[in-house]
Amino acid sequence: MTLPIAGLGLTGCSPNTSNRYLEGNFAPVLAESTVTSLDVTGIIPGELAGRFVRNGPNPDDDPGGSRYHWFVGRGMVHGVRLDAGGAMWYRNRYVASPSGQTPNTSVIGHAGKTLAIVESGGLPVELDYDLTSVNDELKMGGGFSAHPQLDPDTGELHAICYDWAALRDHVRYVVIDAAGVLKSETKIALPGMTMIHNMSITQHYAVIYDLPVTLSFLALGTGSSFPFRWNDEYEARIGLLPRDGEDRDIIWSSVKPNYAYHPMNAYEDSEGRVVIDVVRYDKMFESDTNGPFGDSLPRLDRWTINPVSQTVSEEIVDERPLEFPRCHPDLNGKPYRFGYSVAAQYDGFPAIYKHDVQKGVATQFSFNSGQHGAEPVFIPGESARSEDDGFLMTYVYDTNRDASDLAIFDAQDLERGPVATVHLPVRVPYGFHGNWIPDHSESAATA
Amino acid sequence: MTLPIAGLGLTGCSPNTSNRYLEGNFAPVLAESTVTSLDVTGIIPGELAGRFVRNGPNPDDDPGGSRYHWFVGRGMVHGVRLDAGGAMWYRNRYVASPSGQTPNTSVIGHAGKTLAIVESGGLPVELDYDLTSVNDELKMGGGFSAHPQLDPDTGELHAICYDWAALRDHVRYVVIDAAGVLKSETKIALPGMTMIHNMSITQHYAVIYDLPVTLSFLALGTGSSFPFRWNDEYEARIGLLPRDGEDRDIIWSSVKPNYAYHPMNAYEDSEGRVVIDVVRYDKMFESDTNGPFGDSLPRLDRWTINPVSQTVSEEIVDERPLEFPRCHPDLNGKPYRFGYSVAAQYDGFPAIYKHDVQKGVATQFSFNSGQHGAEPVFIPGESARSEDDGFLMTYVYDTNRDASDLAIFDAQDLERGPVATVHLPVRVPYGFHGNWIPDHSESAATA
Repeated sequence: MTLPIAGLGLTGCSPNTSNRYLEGNFAPVLAESTVTSLDVTGIIPGELAGRFVRNGPNPDDDPGGSRYHWFVGRGMVHGVRLDAGGAMWYRNRYVASPSGQTPNTSVIGHAGKTLAIVESGGLPVELDYDLTSVNDELKMGGGFSAHPQLDPDTGELHAICYDWAALRDHVRYVVIDAAGVLKSETKIALPGMTMIHNMSITQHYAVIYDLPVTLSFLALGTGSSFPFRWNDEYEARIGLLPRDGEDRDIIWSSVKPNYAYHPMNAYEDSEGRVVIDVVRYDKMFESDTNGPFGDSLPRLDRWTINPVSQTVSEEIVDERPLEFPRCHPDLNGKPYRFGYSVAAQYDGFPAIYKHDVQKGVATQFSFNSGQHGAEPVFIPGESARSEDDGFLMTYVYDTNRDASDLAIFDAQDLERGPVATVHLPVRVPYGFHGNWIPDHSESAATA
Repeated sequence: MTLPIAGLGLTGCSPNTSNRYLEGNFAPVLAESTVTSLDVTGIIPGELAGRFVRNGPNPDDDPGGSRYHWFVGRGMVHGVRLDAGGAMWYRNRYVASPSGQTPNTSVIGHAGKTLAIVESGGLPVELDYDLTSVNDELKMGGGFSAHPQLDPDTGELHAICYDWAALRDHVRYVVIDAAGVLKSETKIALPGMTMIHNMSITQHYAVIYDLPVTLSFLALGTGSSFPFRWNDEYEARIGLLPRDGEDRDIIWSSVKPNYAYHPMNAYEDSEGRVVIDVVRYDKMFESDTNGPFGDSLPRLDRWTINPVSQTVSEEIVDERPLEFPRCHPDLNGKPYRFGYSVAAQYDGFPAIYKHDVQKGVATQFSFNSGQHGAEPVFIPGESARSEDDGFLMTYVYDTNRDASDLAIFDAQDLERGPVATVHLPVRVPYGFHGNWIPDHSESAATA
């Protein structure tokens, strides 16, 4: 997430002070690389023709030492192209539009375009097939979101867009049509300048996460690179905005104080309740003001919202620390059974989890010592017969060789380990979100 | 040097057998990189605006293990752009023209173009400013040379072009005009298919090095990737071809058996003798058939040829092993005083030498332990007052951090060490030749 805080400067920063978000595999890589000869272990499924792309921060200047926040580094997209059972290339490229945009949080395929995206006012940037930035994408209505939600029935993207510097007292709910053009925009007033990283859609609602991480004028005034802080005074609440409704139609319900970046999925049950499986933290940006993992570790909860009583029942689905949840893209906003996540310890990402949220059980693949996973992206199989018939892809950092792999799992047999591993000669630093963008598809791949 | 030996195959090769030309910093790098944020120690002279480019082999497929020859890997050009005292970028790119040419031996600037070049029938390939291959350069008359010699008075390039597969019983002496177009071509018959890596020019002559490394049909037939071998039966001789003469005008003189890739310079003295300072080996490709350093180590000799008596006096100038000699480009083919070379041990390149060939003395800069230099390119100063008033540039591999530097020396004060060092995050593998190509110059930079 790039925040428009130019001019605030970084006075008083101490570049040599320790900052875990600049160390180990959080550290930026120094080169843009192209590798066309890649070693592969195992067999890459022949049906996978496309690019596995992921965005993340890669600060290339003095990032501010102890004051550097993980969310503000320049965007860098890493990608591996697969085709006919082969790994054709690895590329990493800074996101750098001519206007200076460098969205760092996700990269999606939509309407035939590859788009790097970010929240908080940043424009999407179109990348070419080889991941070189082309230009700002202006058809989507300006400052966008890192987490548009795909409506699998319409191909539309739904997003909550915040931009404290420009919008101040409200956020925008936007719908982008399947052709990539802004279709509708709804202004949503809020009591504070909250950081709204994500949203959900269900059959009838857009879900608004209005949670107690808000703009801190103290942080702003003291030159913090990322001026959002935990706010004990701010009420945590979830809003259900009827998809065609307006601000005044939102059904707000309180939840326990928490912060959540990533719902695994949300849907409406047979009784009209909204069920949200969400990765949530008890605290965020209170003592650790450089990144998300220092105040509390996240767990997977289920929130069930009764829109009539405006009450939320909260239950723990998986208490193990985990992050970056994904589900089947065609079931986004619908009842589902399987979700996927990565174990999130304070010191790394040691396993991939597969959650059966109907049965309340999970399986996992634990990496070898020194290996760390990332967001596991689910890719439906070409002729899938069941919800989990497909593949999981993730980048895996290997401390032992200080380089990363692309690991491809059979999602029905996660425990077996990767069916194929593409060994990169370079690191893919820990970062944020990405997608599999098939070569022959105009459809969105996003979460 | 890329040889047209497609179809010979590499049967019987043993990829895991040790081959020093695939190990350490001889090993290829795996990625094409772009680095725009470069650390610099010292102060880059502000007058240096241009690119320091160097070509070398970078095999990207299974290179044949113990049978891989250093001269046959795909070309990769490494470059650092300097401007206004800053290091703007480092890039390395495979040389890869649409027709499949991948010259690996040198890279020059001529007639406003950046050209990767090679001998033995390969076409020059034009690179764009960012070192991406554009296309074959066809105006220079076909298969070219890795060592065209610049005539500083005319801006012409002179070259001896061999191509055993196409030409068989002769080589071509070509002159390329200052606009980059073939001006003249002279056929030179030879008694064998010799590997003629280089040539020299003097005021009246083109110098032909017809030395006893010749095509080996045994090597060809057994699938060697590089089929030239030492030939005890072949007479070592130097030819003086009057610049406007023909084959029959060549004045041939015998020299002791040797092989030489690189003259430091050649010129005619006041008595009409041709003086050649040359780096020469006692033996080449006899037992070490993978590269140049295993049979003997090179030293700097002076050959003085009397064209009337057709005799050559040979004397040792510097008996220390050294290679990749350079001199002031404006004195190419003319009397000169200073030459530059790199120490060439069997296990590395530990020092840069500056030779005063008039006084018969040398100074040097020895690298720190684990650091290895390369060809030192002399760049005249902007308002130079003496022959050695300028800079030396070379890539320096640092074993300790497994990465390379670009080192810039004051050529008048070599012993002081680099005035500026640009630290690259990646290795520049040991390779061959390169040049400084100023931004605002159409003139050739070559040797």
